[in-house]
Amino acid sequence: MSYAPFDDAAIGYWQLPTGRTNSICDVEGVRVGHVQNMQGNARTGVTALLPMADNIYANKLPAGCAVINGFGKSAGLVQVPELGEIETPIVFTNTLGVGIASQVLIERAIAENPQIGRNGSATVNPLVFECNDGRVNDIQAIGIDGDLVDAALDQCDTTFAQGTVGAGTGMCTFGFAGGLGSASRKVQIGEQTYTLGSFVLSNFGQRSNIRVFGQNPQKFTDQTPDSPDAGSIIIVMATDLPLDSLQLSRLSLRAAAALGRLGSHYGHHSGDVALAFSTQNARKLNGDDIVVQQRLSDRHADKVFLAGVEATENAILNALWHSEPHEGYDGSLLPSWRDFYERG
Amino acid sequence: MSYAPFDDAAIGYWQLPTGRTNSICDVEGVRVGHVQNMQGNARTGVTALLPMADNIYANKLPAGCAVINGFGKSAGLVQVPELGEIETPIVFTNTLGVGIASQVLIERAIAENPQIGRNGSATVNPLVFECNDGRVNDIQAIGIDGDLVDAALDQCDTTFAQGTVGAGTGMCTFGFAGGLGSASRKVQIGEQTYTLGSFVLSNFGQRSNIRVFGQNPQKFTDQTPDSPDAGSIIIVMATDLPLDSLQLSRLSLRAAAALGRLGSHYGHHSGDVALAFSTQNARKLNGDDIVVQQRLSDRHADKVFLAGVEATENAILNALWHSEPHEGYDGSLLPSWRDFYERG
Amino acid sequence: MSYAPFDDAAIGYWQLPTGRTNSICDVEGVRVGHVQNMQGNARTGVTALLPMADNIYANKLPAGCAVINGFGKSAGLVQVPELGEIETPIVFTNTLGVGIASQVLIERAIAENPQIGRNGSATVNPLVFECNDGRVNDIQAIGIDGDLVDAALDQCDTTFAQGTVGAGTGMCTFGFAGGLGSASRKVQIGEQTYTLGSFVLSNFGQRSNIRVFGQNPQKFTDQTPDSPDAGSIIIVMATDLPLDSLQLSRLSLRAAAALGRLGSHYGHHSGDVALAFSTQNARKLNGDDIVVQQRLSDRHADKVFLAGVEATENAILNALWHSEPHEGYDGSLLPSWRDFYERG
Amino acid sequence: MSYAPFDDAAIGYWQLPTGRTNSICDVEGVRVGHVQNMQGNARTGVTALLPMADNIYANKLPAGCAVINGFGKSAGLVQVPELGEIETPIVFTNTLGVGIASQVLIERAIAENPQIGRNGSATVNPLVFECNDGRVNDIQAIGIDGDLVDAALDQCDTTFAQGTVGAGTGMCTFGFAGGLGSASRKVQIGEQTYTLGSFVLSNFGQRSNIRVFGQNPQKFTDQTPDSPDAGSIIIVMATDLPLDSLQLSRLSLRAAAALGRLGSHYGHHSGDVALAFSTQNARKLNGDDIVVQQRLSDRHADKVFLAGVEATENAILNALWHSEPHEGYDGSLLPSWRDFYERG
Repeated sequence: MSYAPFDDAAIGYWQLPTGRTNSICDVEGVRVGHVQNMQGNARTGVTALLPMADNIYANKLPAGCAVINGFGKSAGLVQVPELGEIETPIVFTNTLGVGIASQVLIERAIAENPQIGRNGSATVNPLVFECNDGRVNDIQAIGIDGDLVDAALDQCDTTFAQGTVGAGTGMCTFGFAGGLGSASRKVQIGEQTYTLGSFVLSNFGQRSNIRVFGQNPQKFTDQTPDSPDAGSIIIVMATDLPLDSLQLSRLSLRAAAALGRLGSHYGHHSGDVALAFSTQNARKLNGDDIVVQQRLSDRHADKVFLAGVEATENAILNALWHSEPHEGYDGSLLPSWRDFYERG
Repeated sequence: MSYAPFDDAAIGYWQLPTGRTNSICDVEGVRVGHVQNMQGNARTGVTALLPMADNIYANKLPAGCAVINGFGKSAGLVQVPELGEIETPIVFTNTLGVGIASQVLIERAIAENPQIGRNGSATVNPLVFECNDGRVNDIQAIGIDGDLVDAALDQCDTTFAQGTVGAGTGMCTFGFAGGLGSASRKVQIGEQTYTLGSFVLSNFGQRSNIRVFGQNPQKFTDQTPDSPDAGSIIIVMATDLPLDSLQLSRLSLRAAAALGRLGSHYGHHSGDVALAFSTQNARKLNGDDIVVQQRLSDRHADKVFLAGVEATENAILNALWHSEPHEGYDGSLLPSWRDFYERG
Repeated sequence: MSYAPFDDAAIGYWQLPTGRTNSICDVEGVRVGHVQNMQGNARTGVTALLPMADNIYANKLPAGCAVINGFGKSAGLVQVPELGEIETPIVFTNTLGVGIASQVLIERAIAENPQIGRNGSATVNPLVFECNDGRVNDIQAIGIDGDLVDAALDQCDTTFAQGTVGAGTGMCTFGFAGGLGSASRKVQIGEQTYTLGSFVLSNFGQRSNIRVFGQNPQKFTDQTPDSPDAGSIIIVMATDLPLDSLQLSRLSLRAAAALGRLGSHYGHHSGDVALAFSTQNARKLNGDDIVVQQRLSDRHADKVFLAGVEATENAILNALWHSEPHEGYDGSLLPSWRDFYERG
Repeated sequence: MSYAPFDDAAIGYWQLPTGRTNSICDVEGVRVGHVQNMQGNARTGVTALLPMADNIYANKLPAGCAVINGFGKSAGLVQVPELGEIETPIVFTNTLGVGIASQVLIERAIAENPQIGRNGSATVNPLVFECNDGRVNDIQAIGIDGDLVDAALDQCDTTFAQGTVGAGTGMCTFGFAGGLGSASRKVQIGEQTYTLGSFVLSNFGQRSNIRVFGQNPQKFTDQTPDSPDAGSIIIVMATDLPLDSLQLSRLSLRAAAALGRLGSHYGHHSGDVALAFSTQNARKLNGDDIVVQQRLSDRHADKVFLAGVEATENAILNALWHSEPHEGYDGSLLPSWRDFYERG
C-alpha cells in the first residue's frame, strides 16, 4: 500500500487503499480542468469538474450536500438539498467570480439543451463553489471572465495538476500556499470494488492549529506569523457506489471529520461546504414514470464514511504538498508547506 | 378598517389593521425601486429593495429565511441561515440574471466599503432572488445587464408601483399576469405599535388551484386553459419589531401558510423562498465586543406570525390586482385577474 | 365524485378522487386502533397506526418528516431524517404520555426481535406523536399507562372511528371538539392508480382564524369566546407510491399548505409535525448488499403533493365533523363544529 | 499551564487555558450528579446536569443543538431548535431509559410549576440524552427506574466523578471502557474572562480508528479485537458567554471537529448529538414584552469555537482516562485505555 508522498506517516494512520491515481478521476467519468490568471495583480483562476461524460442536464446525478459553516457564497445550494441531484458541471473560482461562472454554466446548458426555460420548462441550476483568495489575489479586480470559465470547462481531463493551480492559484491553507487537491479510496462491498474520490478547493485554517498525522503544530510555526482563519474549504466527493440522495448528504457531512483531524474548528469566516454525488442511477430527463434504481444497504455505510474522511484528509494534504511558495499581489509571501514537512 | 380594493371580501377575513400605505415601505427605512426591459423579446426587469438608509454592510441587519421548496437559484442563502443577518440590498430579477445582479451588488458594496476582501477581510454576500419569467419573457436572451440593476437600486423610494413592473414584468401567478405586490400589518405590543410588511415577487400557482377569500377556483377558469405550476415565489418580510435571527426564521416560514390559503401546494418546480429581517438591532461592523440588544418575548409570537401571514396573502393579491394583461414574446396572452375578480 | 359529508362545498374545491373509504387504511397494509380513558378527570386516550402487516423492525419503510413548528415533544424524530426510515408502529397520545408509549414500543419490538440491543446490535427508535389535551383532560394526572398503549396496538384494524376518540378524545381544533381524522386521495400515474392517505391528530388553531371551504370565520364565532392557539397537530401520510426518503420529506412538508388553507398560522405553541412513509421498497434487516428499488419520477411530484394537501385538509375536516361536544374535567364545554357547520 | 494528566502530549497541542477544575462546573451554576445500577446483569446508570440553580422552567436558557449523526433516540430535540432554549435539567441514561427519565423530568417540572399544562398553558419539554450501553449492560432489562433518575437529580453538585460512573457506567469508547468526561476552557474577550465547559457521555468509535494527540492507532490495538462503531456520543457545552440561540447552534456543531480529531467518522450507528447553552440572558416566564439582552460580537466567534473543540476533545480523553476496566454482564471485558496510554 502506498500513500506517496506520505507513506512514512500515513501507513497505519490511514486504512483504506487508494484508487489507481489517488484522485477523484479514479471514479469513472469524472474529469477536471483548470486555467489561471496571473496578469497584473491577479493571482486567481478557475477549475471545472465534469461529473460525467454525458449531458448531465439530461442525466441528472443523485447528490447531497452539507453546509458545515455557511460563511460562503457558493451558487446552487438551494436546489441540491431539495431535489437531491446535480444538473451541471461544477465550477470552482474566487468569491467574486461566482456570478460570472454561473452565467457561463447557464449558457452552456442552454446550448446543449435548447428547451431550458422555454414553454414553461424548468431553468437550470448552475453549481459554482468559491473561496476568497484575497490574501494573495487582488480580488476586487475580479480577475475572472467568461472566457476563463469556458477554458476551464473545455480542458477537463482525467489527469490534472494539483496545488496552486486553477481556482487554487491564490488559495491559502493553514497559512501556507494551497490549493487544489484530490485523493481516492477503494471500498469493498462483497466481491465488488467501488471507488470514492474527494476533490478540495482548500483555503482554510489557522497556522497555529494545524495537525498533520498527529504532528504538533509548533513544527510549522517557527518562522512565519500566525494569521486568523479567514478562508473556506470546498469538498466535492464522487463515487460509483449506488447511494441515494440522503446517503450522499450523510457522506458529504463526513468531510467535517477530515477537517477536524487536520486541526480546523470550522472557522467563523470559513465557508466550509461539502457535496457528494454518485455516478450511478442517473435520472434521465424524459425517463419512465417509475424507474428502477440500485441502493447500497446502510449496513455498509461505515466503510463509505471512512473512505470519505480518508480521501478528504488526503486530498487536503495533497493540496498542501503540491502548492508552490507564492508571492501575493501586495508583495506578501505564502510559504510552501512541503518545505516544512520535508525538513521533518 | 380598509383593505381596499378587497374590502367586501376581506373585512372579517383578515383581522389585523394595515399600515399607512399597506406596503413594506410602512416599515421605516425600507425603499423599493424598479426598472424593466421590454425591448425586442424581453419582458423582464429588475426590482431592488433597500432594507435601511445606512450602509447595510457596515450595519448588518438580523434576518432569517425559510426554503419552502428549493427548486430555485437565488443567491445568498447559504450565509443568511449561518450568520442570521443580511449585508446587502436585496435584488429581484429573472432566474438567469442572478449572476449579473450579484456582481453589481458586490461592486457597489466594494465602492462603499473599500476594505472588502482585502488584507484577509471578509467578502460580501449579495442577496439576489429570482423567478423564472420564461412564459412571457425570452429568458434565454437574459435581458438583464448591470446597468438595469444599478438603475433599480438607484430608483428606490418609499412609494413604488406594483403588478407587472420591475422584476414582476413577466411573472405569472395562478395563470394570470403578475407580478410584484406588497402589504403591511400593524402589530400592537402593550402600548407600542409596530409594523410588519411583506413584499412578493409572485410567479407561482396553477389556475385550477386558486382560492381567493374562499372563492372556488371555477370562477377563474372559464376561459383560459390550465397550466402546471412552473413558477416560484419570493417573499420578503420586514419589521421594526426587535426579533432575533431565530425568531425571524420562524416568521419567514409563515409565508407558507399564506401560500396555502391561496391554493398552493408548493409546486415541485416552484422555488418558494421566504426571508424576514428586522430593522432593529443593526450590527455595526466594528461595534463593541458585547452589544446590548432588544428582543420581543415569544409570548407575542402569534401576533407577529399572523401579521406575516396576512401581509403576505394581501401582498400576493395586490400583485394580482395591479397586474395588467400581458402579451408574451411568443404572442401568448396572460389575462388580468382583476377582470375576473371584478366581474364577481 | 363524493366527499361526503362535504359534497356541497367540496366538489369543485377539491380535485382528486378519494380512495374507497376515504381513510388512510385505503393504503394497503395500514391499520389503526384506539382506546380511551374517561375515568375520573381523564379525557384522554391512545391511538396506534400500523404501517404494515409485517414486522416493521425487520422491514423498515422509507419515510421523511417535516417539523413545521417544533413546539412539540414527539419521540423518534432525530432518527427519521437521518436514516429516512421508520421501524416501529406509530403511537399517538397526550404530551405527557410519550415516555410511557415509547417504552411499550421498545418492549414490543424486543419481543418480536430479540437481538435488539444485544451483541452490539442497534436498538430501536420508537415513534410517538403527541398533542396537549390539557384543555379538557387533567393532563397532570397522566392518564396513560402501558396497558392502554398495548390495547391500542392490539386493536388496529382497517376501519376505525374518527373524532373525539383514542388520542383525539380530549383534543380541540379551532376551539371545537376534535379529534382524529383521516382521508385519502387517488393518484393516477400512467395506467396505474396509487393511493395516498392522511391521518391527523388535530389539536390546533384559534377559533377566530378558521376558514372552511372559504367560509369566513365569523360564521363560527357567534357563541363562544375565542381562545389562543395552544395546541398542536400531527399529520401522518401513507402511500403505496414508490417514493424515496427525500421525496417523502418533501411530501410531508405539504401538510403546511393544508393547515394554511384552514386558517392556521402555525401557532407559536403548536407542535405542527408531519411524517410521510411509503409502503413500498421495505428495507429488509439482512437484505442484499445492494438492493433494487423503484422510484417515482419527480415529473409527477405535483400530483403527489396535491394529494397530500387535499387528503390532509379533508382529514382535519373529518376530525372536526366526527367530534362530539365535550365536557372538560373542569366543567368547561367544547362545542361540536358539526352543529355550526350544519346550521349553515 | 496544565492539562493534567496529559501535559506531556497536550501542551503545545492545545492552546487555551483550562478553567479552575477543568470541568463543566467551572461555568457558574452548573452542577452534575450520578447514580448507577450494578445489580444483577445491570451495568448502567443515570447522570443529571443542572444548568442553573434557579427553576429553569421559569428562567429558560438560550440553547442550540446540532445533530451530527441522528442515529439516536434522545428526547427534547424537536423543540430546542425551534425555540432556541432549554427548560428542564438534562438527564443522561441508556437508550431504553429515555421514556422513564422523561416522565421524571415532567413530574418534577410540574411539582415546581403547577400551572404546566393547565388552562391552556404550555407543557414542558424534557431533555434526555442517551447512548446504548448494551455491550456491557443487559439493556433489555432496562435497569433504569424513576427512583434512579430522581436520585441523580438530587445529588447534583459542583464536583463529580468521571469515567465509568452514572450514565457512563456501561459505555465503551473506541473499544475501551468509558464513560463520562468533562473539561473547560477560558475565553478572553477584552478585559473579561469567560468560561466554556464541555460534558460528554462517550460511547463511540472503533478501536482501529483512535487517534490521540496524533498517536497512531496501532499503539492501542495490540491485544484486543477490533469492533465496529456501534455507539453514540452526547456532547453538552455550557458557557457564561452571552451567546444567542443561533450562535449556540453554531458552537454545538464544533463538537464534530473534536470527534474528527480523535478519529471518528461519525459512525452510521452512532447518535452523535451536541447541545450548547448559555447561562446568560435567562428568559423569565412572565418577563417584559421586550427584554434587553447581551450578545457577543461574532468577531470573537473563533475563540469560542476553538474553546468548544478543545474542551470537547479534552472531555472525551478525560472520559477514557477515568474509566476503569469493566466486565460486561456476559463476561466480556472492556479494558482501560489508561493502561495502554501510560505504557506509552
